[in-house]
Amino acid sequence: MKTKNISFDKIKLTGGFWAEKQALIRNAAIMTVYDRFKDTGRIDAFKCDRKEDEPKRPHFFWDSDVAKWIESVAYLTRLEKAPELEALADAIIDNVEKNQSDDGYFNIYYTVVKPGERFTNRNNHELYCAGHLLEAAIAYKEATGKDKLYNCMLKYVDLIERVFMIENSAEFTTPGHEELELALIKLYDCSGEDRYLKLAQFFIDKRGANDKDTPNLEKNGCGYHIGYFQDQAPIREQTTAEGHAVRLCYLYIAVADTAYRIGDEGLKNAARAVFDNIVSKRMYITGGVGSTPNGEAFERDYELDNLVAYNETCATLSLALFAHRMQELFDDAKYADIAERAMYNGFISGMSLDGKSYFYQNPMRIDLHSHKRKMGGRFKIEYPITERVSVFNCSCCPPNITRFIPSVANFLYTLDGNTLRVNQFMESEGEFEGIKISQKTNYPFDGSVEITYGGEEKTLALRLPCWCDGYKLRKNGRRIKPENKNGYLLVSVKGGDKLVYDMEMKPTFNFANPRIASAVSRVAVSVGPLVYCVEGIDNPDFTSDKCGLDNLRIKLDSKLEMGFDTDLMLPTVSACATYVKPMDALYTRKAPEVGKTKVKFIPYHAFANRGASDMQVWMLF
Amino acid sequence: MKTKNISFDKIKLTGGFWAEKQALIRNAAIMTVYDRFKDTGRIDAFKCDRKEDEPKRPHFFWDSDVAKWIESVAYLTRLEKAPELEALADAIIDNVEKNQSDDGYFNIYYTVVKPGERFTNRNNHELYCAGHLLEAAIAYKEATGKDKLYNCMLKYVDLIERVFMIENSAEFTTPGHEELELALIKLYDCSGEDRYLKLAQFFIDKRGANDKDTPNLEKNGCGYHIGYFQDQAPIREQTTAEGHAVRLCYLYIAVADTAYRIGDEGLKNAARAVFDNIVSKRMYITGGVGSTPNGEAFERDYELDNLVAYNETCATLSLALFAHRMQELFDDAKYADIAERAMYNGFISGMSLDGKSYFYQNPMRIDLHSHKRKMGGRFKIEYPITERVSVFNCSCCPPNITRFIPSVANFLYTLDGNTLRVNQFMESEGEFEGIKISQKTNYPFDGSVEITYGGEEKTLALRLPCWCDGYKLRKNGRRIKPENKNGYLLVSVKGGDKLVYDMEMKPTFNFANPRIASAVSRVAVSVGPLVYCVEGIDNPDFTSDKCGLDNLRIKLDSKLEMGFDTDLMLPTVSACATYVKPMDALYTRKAPEVGKTKVKFIPYHAFANRGASDMQVWMLF
Repeated sequence: MKTKNISFDKIKLTGGFWAEKQALIRNAAIMTVYDRFKDTGRIDAFKCDRKEDEPKRPHFFWDSDVAKWIESVAYLTRLEKAPELEALADAIIDNVEKNQSDDGYFNIYYTVVKPGERFTNRNNHELYCAGHLLEAAIAYKEATGKDKLYNCMLKYVDLIERVFMIENSAEFTTPGHEELELALIKLYDCSGEDRYLKLAQFFIDKRGANDKDTPNLEKNGCGYHIGYFQDQAPIREQTTAEGHAVRLCYLYIAVADTAYRIGDEGLKNAARAVFDNIVSKRMYITGGVGSTPNGEAFERDYELDNLVAYNETCATLSLALFAHRMQELFDDAKYADIAERAMYNGFISGMSLDGKSYFYQNPMRIDLHSHKRKMGGRFKIEYPITERVSVFNCSCCPPNITRFIPSVANFLYTLDGNTLRVNQFMESEGEFEGIKISQKTNYPFDGSVEITYGGEEKTLALRLPCWCDGYKLRKNGRRIKPENKNGYLLVSVKGGDKLVYDMEMKPTFNFANPRIASAVSRVAVSVGPLVYCVEGIDNPDFTSDKCGLDNLRIKLDSKLEMGFDTDLMLPTVSACATYVKPMDALYTRKAPEVGKTKVKFIPYHAFANRGASDMQVWMLF
Repeated sequence: MKTKNISFDKIKLTGGFWAEKQALIRNAAIMTVYDRFKDTGRIDAFKCDRKEDEPKRPHFFWDSDVAKWIESVAYLTRLEKAPELEALADAIIDNVEKNQSDDGYFNIYYTVVKPGERFTNRNNHELYCAGHLLEAAIAYKEATGKDKLYNCMLKYVDLIERVFMIENSAEFTTPGHEELELALIKLYDCSGEDRYLKLAQFFIDKRGANDKDTPNLEKNGCGYHIGYFQDQAPIREQTTAEGHAVRLCYLYIAVADTAYRIGDEGLKNAARAVFDNIVSKRMYITGGVGSTPNGEAFERDYELDNLVAYNETCATLSLALFAHRMQELFDDAKYADIAERAMYNGFISGMSLDGKSYFYQNPMRIDLHSHKRKMGGRFKIEYPITERVSVFNCSCCPPNITRFIPSVANFLYTLDGNTLRVNQFMESEGEFEGIKISQKTNYPFDGSVEITYGGEEKTLALRLPCWCDGYKLRKNGRRIKPENKNGYLLVSVKGGDKLVYDMEMKPTFNFANPRIASAVSRVAVSVGPLVYCVEGIDNPDFTSDKCGLDNLRIKLDSKLEMGFDTDLMLPTVSACATYVKPMDALYTRKAPEVGKTKVKFIPYHAFANRGASDMQVWMLF
């Protein structure tokens, strides 16, 4: 019997970390993003009435930005009705219906900027936009019962099926930016119609096998290697994560989803190979992926530079989604571990603590002094920005955050037969499939979770996180030591049972594989699932305009101590360190004088919330 | 009484380090450079008969390349007659005479590429070329007695004096690339005519005070700040080393030379302020200067990145020359220390051990794996090349090396009144001013120097190098402990005296000021004046395609041991180090397994003589 994921709308987050983030989305982010989309012309672009000489020329990804916003509204609505948001979404959807071509086609850019050129440029995100509109349509129908957008998209999918699968009449065979594939599988799940799964499978199976797609790239002056589009080989022959990180993860979500639905071992193995390559060789400790700004792409194995680390918020988000799909497919806690790592670190760092500003790039190190160095022409070094921005042009991340967080409870439970897997820990109340289950916890700041179960007798499989060295588990007050299978503690429960699960959560050092040049001989601090970092603002004698954070050497034999920052309202860690005292000489043969100090760490996801500051995850020891 | 520098032609290098380099210049480099200049059209460009559509369009710095080659021939000729080289030089000089304008003007670029535009573009190296031709003319006259080029240049200088100083009719006031100033002082020394010194002084005093020069820059589309040309303030108000490193050093050579000749305290202080800024805040441990490739320029204080370090060979060479002028001016050994640091490290690294190929940039670290990373467009990171080249387009460095090495004995002695200063140590025999002095030594590989003195009673001032912690000095076999004044040991000598000077020379660690972010928490190894480095080729388990040299942590409490590399024919140092053993996990909370190993160091100047290799000067400890 296949594992079934429990949808977020069956679970209410009743407090704690994610409930607070959800409140930020509803109370701040969702309208911040809408207002910016309005200002920049994205919302009105759906009217498709732009005159040629007007400013605010639609970009070819605008449809997708707004689609993700509609999807966000759908998820928020499922948590709690929001008529004012629904009205805004409805107005956009009316414009989709009004401006959809008779044959089902809808795309703003190819309607008002490049009419007559549809399906000619593989890299222009046409099918990517279609995918996001389709995801939005499904979510909006499920949330509101309104099927206007859904029906529009069904017509559009009919067209896509005909053009790509039946007639093969487009100038390319598979999407340049994957996304539609996973949306089609959602449509298959929602409609039960096989042909949508088949179309998704068609796009997956055709990758890397098309003479048509390759020359088209060159024609369009796109300088990237075809690996940038995951097109270097057929999916079943790809074993490493190549190219644009978001595209790769979106594609492999569809690969895993398809493998899950058709039970294909080849696709399962393909998904596993690439996932393993990412997490064992191409991922930052924060779950950040896509280390190079050059194409927002995966680099070679172990090439995880800290300063230039790109780690787009969307990429880390999509890794969490990919990991969760792998979890469904393999029922192994190691996948949920990765989802957790990404969610609590490299993903959530993309939004400011107040929900109003964003990072696209989530670097592992900021050296303000070097970043200010002026390099021009062929010597330019592009560093990530050092402050979050509320104004944005490329807007994929903000609406991706606003759709992810309201639906985050998707990650909580999976049900396979008689086993209910508790994959993540969030203060919540769930009711589904004849089960009532609640979690009381201050996770991720505390490793204690109180679980109350109601329903038929079942096996509850509690994830034992990879970061956890020990635990105590009580069932109805009595200590138990259940079997650990694939990283899950298997506990049989019946209605009325209460579990108290205490995961040992203390600050620890993390070491990197010595092949990671920028992390070797360095140490990172984590507490439970949270990776920590050091900011200059907390360690003012070691900012990069003075001697820099690399003058601090963490003493591994000293105790890490927990504290609390009342400004950030977050836990902190302090560690002992030595440093070289200021001196006059530029170079000296005498061992310099060494001092001792304390270094303050804060959770990585909270960096750059107090203005631009030096920052480092990996500290010398 | 003013300090007098003893000219190289009074001293014969009879063996050892520099004599071997001189042999390389005569036997290999001088003709390698000529042949390349012939191939690239530089030699024939002096015919000034190029048709517009011909390839090999002269660059505006070609005159200077060939001028430095002629100057090199002059110096070689002074060491030993070389009729075949003289014949080649004569042929070039004939073309200068033939193609010089009636009014004295000579410049290939403005004759055949941009006729009619002379003295309109400050940045096009016109006066820089004039300066190098003038230096060549003086050297060639002194070496061969032939004054054809000299007379041509006198005419040219007359023109320059009239246009710039008398008429002020050029479109700029001072050179965009300084060099002419120092050449004019040489002409003053050679001719005894005051007006040449005055013209040099005019160019110096006018810097930073001309409205004419600044807008001209913009007109020419030169994006650099005027500080790039040392034009941000009048010389007497400049206190930091700004802009293009070679230009700065050439300018300050002239500033020091002028201060020396006219006894101007303001200029003396100006030279000292900028020199101090360089050596106390803006110089690599190798004497390399100009840390950024962006304008081959000085960076802000302590900004001495290892990977992008530019350190043009010419810049380090010119720092040595500047230091030597400061030595003449202040009679303080600390200046000779800097000259030594530059000569034996960041300068001589610019030429391969066989004298046939060159580096323009002398990085402090090569990470082959990162250097191979493909970054395009706005994300490009320009790293220095990793292999020496014999083919070159911008050719300032090779003929600068070929003129520096034959005349290197210039650095040996200065005479102030009754004191003969021994500033450097080279196996040599000198005869000048009624003195006969010889040095027997294997310096810089051995700190022992045997000095035989002949002549009137004098004070011999032996430099006690900054790297030397102890010494033994014997005069005619008896141990003496002379006074140390300004870094010199003062020994009275008379004819027939023999000194045996043993400078303690052993491998030591060097530490950097903690404000140098790329050297803090790291250590460099040196032996005497030679800075050492680690190459991947000698430490094959730690190349950057595996775990990288930063996985090695030098154990400071272990002994550094000397060895010898029979391939490089150079001494080596080995140090104990620890490293993290290979592991499977990408990240781990368990302290990783640590191994012990030996790290091999070679002299920095010999890096990249066995193909491209990882290289590091500063090692973690």
